[in-house]
Amino acid sequence: MTDALALDDLHASVSDPAAASMDFLNEVAARFPAAIPLAAGRPYDGFHTAADLTRYLGGYLDHLAGLGLDAARRDRHLLQYGRTNGLLGPLIARMLARDEDVHVPAEAVMVTSGAQEAMVVALRGLCAGPRDVVLAVDPCYVGLTGAARLLGVEVVPVPESPAGLDPEDVLAAARAVRASGRRPRALYLVPNCANPSGATLPLPARRRLLEVADEADLLLLEDDPYGLFAEPALPSLKSLDASGRVVYLGSFAKSCFPGARVGFLVADRPVTDRQGRRALLAERLSTVKSLLTVNTSPVAQAVVGGYLLAHDCSLRAATRPKAAVYRRNLRTLLTALDRAFADHPGVRRSAPAGGFFAVLDVPFVADKALLEVSGRDYGVLWTPMSFFHQAPAAGLRSLRLSCSALAPDRIEEGVRRLARLVADRTP
Amino acid sequence: MTDALALDDLHASVSDPAAASMDFLNEVAARFPAAIPLAAGRPYDGFHTAADLTRYLGGYLDHLAGLGLDAARRDRHLLQYGRTNGLLGPLIARMLARDEDVHVPAEAVMVTSGAQEAMVVALRGLCAGPRDVVLAVDPCYVGLTGAARLLGVEVVPVPESPAGLDPEDVLAAARAVRASGRRPRALYLVPNCANPSGATLPLPARRRLLEVADEADLLLLEDDPYGLFAEPALPSLKSLDASGRVVYLGSFAKSCFPGARVGFLVADRPVTDRQGRRALLAERLSTVKSLLTVNTSPVAQAVVGGYLLAHDCSLRAATRPKAAVYRRNLRTLLTALDRAFADHPGVRRSAPAGGFFAVLDVPFVADKALLEVSGRDYGVLWTPMSFFHQAPAAGLRSLRLSCSALAPDRIEEGVRRLARLVADRTP
Repeated sequence: MTDALALDDLHASVSDPAAASMDFLNEVAARFPAAIPLAAGRPYDGFHTAADLTRYLGGYLDHLAGLGLDAARRDRHLLQYGRTNGLLGPLIARMLARDEDVHVPAEAVMVTSGAQEAMVVALRGLCAGPRDVVLAVDPCYVGLTGAARLLGVEVVPVPESPAGLDPEDVLAAARAVRASGRRPRALYLVPNCANPSGATLPLPARRRLLEVADEADLLLLEDDPYGLFAEPALPSLKSLDASGRVVYLGSFAKSCFPGARVGFLVADRPVTDRQGRRALLAERLSTVKSLLTVNTSPVAQAVVGGYLLAHDCSLRAATRPKAAVYRRNLRTLLTALDRAFADHPGVRRSAPAGGFFAVLDVPFVADKALLEVSGRDYGVLWTPMSFFHQAPAAGLRSLRLSCSALAPDRIEEGVRRLARLVADRTP
Repeated sequence: MTDALALDDLHASVSDPAAASMDFLNEVAARFPAAIPLAAGRPYDGFHTAADLTRYLGGYLDHLAGLGLDAARRDRHLLQYGRTNGLLGPLIARMLARDEDVHVPAEAVMVTSGAQEAMVVALRGLCAGPRDVVLAVDPCYVGLTGAARLLGVEVVPVPESPAGLDPEDVLAAARAVRASGRRPRALYLVPNCANPSGATLPLPARRRLLEVADEADLLLLEDDPYGLFAEPALPSLKSLDASGRVVYLGSFAKSCFPGARVGFLVADRPVTDRQGRRALLAERLSTVKSLLTVNTSPVAQAVVGGYLLAHDCSLRAATRPKAAVYRRNLRTLLTALDRAFADHPGVRRSAPAGGFFAVLDVPFVADKALLEVSGRDYGVLWTPMSFFHQAPAAGLRSLRLSCSALAPDRIEEGVRRLARLVADRTP
């Protein structure tokens, strides 16, 4: 009989609590397959079929031919090792100019194996030692806190109120960190239709946040998977960024499809070495990227490249039909919540301006134990908001509802089931 | 004008010396495009074309259909988020049984975004704190030392002699680490046709190394990108492993093609938590994988899956034509070296049993400066072995020659050019 390793002897990230929470969600979903998953934040099925892969690959190969590459060079582009920062820099730069009014050179773009890797690259590059910490909006996307745990980087939460993140709170948190002898390197946030809160940062707060970044000498890690589905579309922090303070983290999971596992990072802040030579931050971070995954699969990049090319490098144009579905779904969810909880003064919903998520505040503890009851006895699943908070007692009476993956009638039925749970639990 | 970040304020991995060395190699190669690159260790071009992508994708989709998945589920398999540890576990387990006499359940397999990510996952999971160190054969593949730097994991070098790695040296190094109050968690090595040394660990040393792993309570990280091209093929450490001590790191970059960016990790050591629940190490490490890249692109996995299925899950059968090319190339290189340096008693070559690399010892310092001279004045590029050693003075009079990417006449001409350099430099 083999000795077993002890879980406690492995690194803390192996037991990452947020990842454990997500495992718990998956496990509950598997045990109650008939429950309606208002917990599932994945994109809607049915926008694409496997046949699109061949079509987009072909489109990208045609593009390479148009650039003058012969067949052997086209094959090498897709099949050999490639440039660490990827092939799609020029197309993504064009897309950002068209869709986001963001104007950066292709060299400022790093293609990553999903936005998750972009977070790891940014955190690793910016946090040089144990004194370097990252501020993050709280509640926070679990991928960011998990990436920080993986790297041993401390995350200082900056609480978000129902009115959204207050830039003055960011300034105060950065100053407190500095006063404690540590160095705040960056603030992480999702300014558009955040996961999990659904909140969108208003334009004046965006402008002030950029000033705060200058005053506190912070970078802003702007994670923007849902900006294409926000109404109205506000200018991204990156588009307002005159000084290269914003590192923009992009995802193609929602705009194209998750199976490509292609994301990107835009970092045009200059970096100087001791000899005074300058390079862009994205170019400097390429070493970190090479040590994680060498380069992002050129096959997957070609699929995304073909998708971009098929829509003249406008994701906003490409995703118009998708945005309509997500708008319809969110409207369905919010209308159903209003109908179901009109007579429950103790229940409040958030007012997301688009995206995949809404938050429901309830007058009782909505934790793992209740989720289990909800799945078994009421046939509906949701996500405890406490999963997304760093403080153990925070978010205990709130739950995240997602409407991205479901048809409208399922959303409505899910909310009816949720209403029965709430009615039974409300004193 | 924007303030620049200082390179010294970024994490040490941004300035990883091995990555910087590889950048230097690429930069020299770009400046001297007419030089013959005996430095390039990439696979031979021309085994595959882009048309294979569609064919293999189709083959994998047919396989899913054969498993009973309807079109919508097949689409979801390729286009949606997927299982963290990937889709190919069953096919890879079958491949390992056929090719390597390794018998593990599919749950012991994690598919990764190339073998590089597998290294990061293994190091991160096993090294829980600053006391935990990893032993590594020296000279060492730079991807391993770079991954360790990224994670802040100390690497203790175990020198390899021309006769190969001595398991007793591993035992002594592990004991010295433990005596210093640290904990040796694993030994990293490439037992078949190593990069960079070309050395292959003999069978008795493999058996003894497994005993040493037990005695010193080490895991063995067996990185095996070149085993298919070794002659004769020795049993992998994993196939001799009765106690789950070996974590096997696999790559499809050489057997299939690098552009898929698909690798894998096999880890069947049991792990127990405080409640005594058991899982396999690969299952436990899935959290780490999810925090790095969520999951490996199912599109890329499907391409590799189709390749495996096209050859009945035998990579050994699939790579027979490739192995013939690499054998021919290595024979060409060794014969050319013997011819060129027959009259140079101060020059010695290694005797690799296959793979991509040979090492040449020369009676002068073969460093970056000489590489520059070699590229400019002699038209041939190679890799200083010092790039792969941890001690600054080690490997200074040796160079690595690669024959994987070149046609035989180019290898021969490269060696003739190298011989002129050696003649001019030899006192």
